[in-house]
Amino acid sequence: MSVPAAPARLGDPVAAIDTPALVIDLDAMERNLERMAGYALGHGVRLRPHAKMHKSATLAKLQMAAGAVGVCVQKLGEAEALADGGVGDIYISNEVIDVAKLARVAVLAGRVRLAIAVDSALGADRLAAAMKGSGASIDVFVEIDVGQGRCGVAPAAAGALAQQVVAHGLRFAGLQAYHGRAQHLRDPQERAAAIRHAVTLARAAQASVTMAGIACPLVTGAGTGTFVHEAASGLYGELQAGSYLFMDRDYADNDATPDAPAFEHALFVKSQVMSRSTSHAVVDAGHKSHAIDSGLPRVWQRDLEFANGGDEHGILRRHAVGGDTLPALGDTVWLVPGHCDPTVNLHDWYVGVRGGLYAGRVESIWPIDARGALR
Amino acid sequence: MSVPAAPARLGDPVAAIDTPALVIDLDAMERNLERMAGYALGHGVRLRPHAKMHKSATLAKLQMAAGAVGVCVQKLGEAEALADGGVGDIYISNEVIDVAKLARVAVLAGRVRLAIAVDSALGADRLAAAMKGSGASIDVFVEIDVGQGRCGVAPAAAGALAQQVVAHGLRFAGLQAYHGRAQHLRDPQERAAAIRHAVTLARAAQASVTMAGIACPLVTGAGTGTFVHEAASGLYGELQAGSYLFMDRDYADNDATPDAPAFEHALFVKSQVMSRSTSHAVVDAGHKSHAIDSGLPRVWQRDLEFANGGDEHGILRRHAVGGDTLPALGDTVWLVPGHCDPTVNLHDWYVGVRGGLYAGRVESIWPIDARGALR
Repeated sequence: MSVPAAPARLGDPVAAIDTPALVIDLDAMERNLERMAGYALGHGVRLRPHAKMHKSATLAKLQMAAGAVGVCVQKLGEAEALADGGVGDIYISNEVIDVAKLARVAVLAGRVRLAIAVDSALGADRLAAAMKGSGASIDVFVEIDVGQGRCGVAPAAAGALAQQVVAHGLRFAGLQAYHGRAQHLRDPQERAAAIRHAVTLARAAQASVTMAGIACPLVTGAGTGTFVHEAASGLYGELQAGSYLFMDRDYADNDATPDAPAFEHALFVKSQVMSRSTSHAVVDAGHKSHAIDSGLPRVWQRDLEFANGGDEHGILRRHAVGGDTLPALGDTVWLVPGHCDPTVNLHDWYVGVRGGLYAGRVESIWPIDARGALR
Repeated sequence: MSVPAAPARLGDPVAAIDTPALVIDLDAMERNLERMAGYALGHGVRLRPHAKMHKSATLAKLQMAAGAVGVCVQKLGEAEALADGGVGDIYISNEVIDVAKLARVAVLAGRVRLAIAVDSALGADRLAAAMKGSGASIDVFVEIDVGQGRCGVAPAAAGALAQQVVAHGLRFAGLQAYHGRAQHLRDPQERAAAIRHAVTLARAAQASVTMAGIACPLVTGAGTGTFVHEAASGLYGELQAGSYLFMDRDYADNDATPDAPAFEHALFVKSQVMSRSTSHAVVDAGHKSHAIDSGLPRVWQRDLEFANGGDEHGILRRHAVGGDTLPALGDTVWLVPGHCDPTVNLHDWYVGVRGGLYAGRVESIWPIDARGALR
């Protein structure tokens, strides 16, 4: 079984990159990296970026070199792939309930500094059974539901579950308190209100833990849309934002948060016009090249409408009034993905370009190490 | 760079398949395979299934052993991957305009029987230049737009483009006339009307070719939603249906076409409940495990609502009235993908189960050869 060949060679001009390809504007990405690292440092919070977004050991290590304490992932398979790539501090910010998977967790905990979330007594019991006798240790966060409506126990139940973690001889590391939906509320005041509510719930959970006689070392959470509010809360000690590194169309569509650093688009799908009529142009990138769960990609620096053309095609049309003319057959068209995370997961390689998308050259070709790491 | 490990071993009981995993019910798939092969044979049309759907050399060869003349793909990279897997007759039913890609087309044409579509003079010129001196031959189809509104020339322009193909010394093989949107019209009468219109346009294109003094050996097209109509047209000589093999939720939601064979769901995502509250259950499969471009998956044989829980989670809730109770932590939940093609592209392995999803065993583990073959 083979992996598709990389779409470019080191030193290639941008024009030579085969399409569709996932391209990083390295200059823009490095500015995003520095802005977020500087923000966390300036506000006295730890940064543990979510590597579910980029799935790359190379990028995780760049983030850690810039000051991040480690990374988060959602899947054990992602953690294993990043560990294989030399990442030494990984938090699976999600539940693992399967016994066979928990045996792999125990093995991985012997290789890297590992943390994991639990939200059930059964999960804590099974984790403890898997870790027993492994000789390895693991940090355990109790996940609480702070408005996401997905995983996590009610705040009032956090103390009892933390007690169970401790009773098993596991290390209780704090509370996982992530509000995913708040990230995508367009209005900054709505985002602020959602996180105020999340902070109230997380404080209640913290009180429940304290009342159970257990210290709560850390509250961890936050994403690119709201981290300013978690950082300002005085409660959250660690931010999990990930998308800041690349910025997708969906996050850019949020109305800006006052005092938040400005992040630039740094991730693009390079596409090419492969069919052209008088009414529209068709590019060779469809939703097998860019995820559309958060909407369609935006055409970069061309004022054109993008319509979904199916798995392998995108359709460009002119606006009814104004905007740009249609590109010609063979022309390059750059797309800004609607949502970075699942877009990255569709590709095997990052092509890193230095010097911009037009005159630049290929400086790096990085494998997407945890692509397809679903398990 | 490594590929994720397969989620099961041969001989495993179904319960041992790790989650999320892409599972084929082999008994159901084989019935679908036979029904479609029997239909094509009984109606005197060639069957060339679209392998963009399954991306598997093994499945392509099974289809050919059952009578298919070859397979279609949408991407050159898919064709290369299937050729590597031993598939000897491949039609790229799509345009390739890039010069570097066309050089690869010429190489591949020396290895397998290859066909390709064109819809522009530039495309024909470049294809001819790439083939010149290669010593290989290729069949060229002129694509016409029969209502899809994507690629393809207008029917009246087919003759001139066919002349150009012939003038280059390339073999004109016929017309590519696929109406993708018609496949998903729910009402069978609307589907029939859309294909009547497509047939009218394809006849006009055929007349344009004939008027140009060129024989038109074949009209090829059709999909799982409409092939009964193309087959009955007396015009189409080849059917490109692909999804019949697995059947997704979206195709099953079509109201049935009279006289069409009945296809069964044969492709599933096996998932597991990894978080559970009193109000909902969360499974470990999100839209990194199943594509949602054609809507959410359906829960198989449990009467529950499925809500999108993001990249890595799916949320199950009870209906307001009636339906089933929520599954417990650790329970297996089978999902029927909304759309097969992009779902398959998210996975590296098919796990083939014999004897049903509950009592069966793993009989086959097949790589998804053209997974990620975007180029």
